Amino acid sequence: MDGDFTRRRLMRLGSAIALLPLWAQQGAAAAAAAGRRDQAAMHRKGDPEAMKDDDANAGPKSRVIGIVLFDAFETLDVFGPVQMWGRLPDHRLMFVSQDGGAVTSAQGTVVNADASFASAPQFDILMVPGGMGTRPLVRDGALLDFVRRQDRATRWTASVCTGAAILARAGLLDGREATTNKLAFDWVAGQSDKVRWQRKARWVFDGKYATSSGVSAGTDMALALVEKLYGRKAAEHAATIAEYRWHDDAADDPFASS
Amino acid sequence: MDGDFTRRRLMRLGSAIALLPLWAQQGAAAAAAAGRRDQAAMHRKGDPEAMKDDDANAGPKSRVIGIVLFDAFETLDVFGPVQMWGRLPDHRLMFVSQDGGAVTSAQGTVVNADASFASAPQFDILMVPGGMGTRPLVRDGALLDFVRRQDRATRWTASVCTGAAILARAGLLDGREATTNKLAFDWVAGQSDKVRWQRKARWVFDGKYATSSGVSAGTDMALALVEKLYGRKAAEHAATIAEYRWHDDAADDPFASS
Repeated sequence: MDGDFTRRRLMRLGSAIALLPLWAQQGAAAAAAAGRRDQAAMHRKGDPEAMKDDDANAGPKSRVIGIVLFDAFETLDVFGPVQMWGRLPDHRLMFVSQDGGAVTSAQGTVVNADASFASAPQFDILMVPGGMGTRPLVRDGALLDFVRRQDRATRWTASVCTGAAILARAGLLDGREATTNKLAFDWVAGQSDKVRWQRKARWVFDGKYATSSGVSAGTDMALALVEKLYGRKAAEHAATIAEYRWHDDAADDPFASS
Repeated sequence: MDGDFTRRRLMRLGSAIALLPLWAQQGAAAAAAAGRRDQAAMHRKGDPEAMKDDDANAGPKSRVIGIVLFDAFETLDVFGPVQMWGRLPDHRLMFVSQDGGAVTSAQGTVVNADASFASAPQFDILMVPGGMGTRPLVRDGALLDFVRRQDRATRWTASVCTGAAILARAGLLDGREATTNKLAFDWVAGQSDKVRWQRKARWVFDGKYATSSGVSAGTDMALALVEKLYGRKAAEHAATIAEYRWHDDAADDPFASS
């Protein structure tokens, strides 16, 4: 991004804070403290989409949501949650791939990673998406070691879709309830008989573990996690600014086979 | 992607075709004709997520869906449609940015482009997303020229969210009905008084122009376009494999201000 663009984004912060709900203003104000106020005050007020910027979660003490990327990950598994988590007031997103290089989604999108397994910091929230790429990865020692190591100190460990197969093979879901993509259910469930797999659930929370059903279900689970972190109004706000109809009942799973 | 991974994807094609609905098998079969059959036959059958691969739309004569990217585009504006369009049997996706370089979404995701405005081929479908990045771009001559030039020969020209502001400023929506993000409605509508802006609509089709309301509405519109191209069952199939509850009524807009 060119300097002028970055400057405009900083200037936008003033009006962004004013538009944030109360729960978010504290974190955003902290982020603004580092000398940005003069620029912010110069910015025109009242732009209704200004709340859509990511400046508000750029605070120095922000927690890290780490999303694992691999070739042939399913696009919406990642970007539904990214949409809903991308503006949390004191969390920032980070993409990690095994070698830190770019990866290609199942729909052909090339996304850059921010860190490798070796260079990634400890995440507060770890999320593993699904997609065809999970098929060989359930036997990938480097990935399984990485998620085990991260999981020791995460606040939340989550998966979307067939990402649950990775968590299961890493042993993180042993003895716990979990769910996954309903079309690929038997393959995922076959990865571990120590998991209490739930055939009818949009998503499942068990302790710090959050697992969702297929693809779009990750967006609903992501909002449920926003509710856990910041309360109901925050989750509803995140859904509303994305004009998203949140299916907020984890037990309502129209894609479960009857 | 390493060679082994690419080979595995080619091998997967056989079972992928078997899982595709009838409407899609013809296109997928054409893509397979280029000497891939032997490899395909070697692949294990019945993987339920195999239909999630993008091999099926890699045919040499495939149409191109071109998505315009710019810094601070809204993440889900792009990746909801990418999810739904990423497996069409005779369309492939292409990202284009002004200089062909990577861009960063409003949620911080860095995405590589496939072409620049200068190198892009003629698109069959042009899609412009929204986001804060549209604010300066309504006065960006290079972008407006690009969408005008592409639009002359597109089969469909579409926008999600505030991307309608770009189409409006380019003059493409003159005299037509269109909609946009409901939170940013007045700003977008202020870009052109020649457009018949619709305050209550999840999406609007007028001739070859498709415009959606904010962010998530783009996913619903993307499925409506799949229905136009391939019929109702194809759209329902695309929604179902993503476990997505398609809101299929363009007039049902809960985010319109009353």
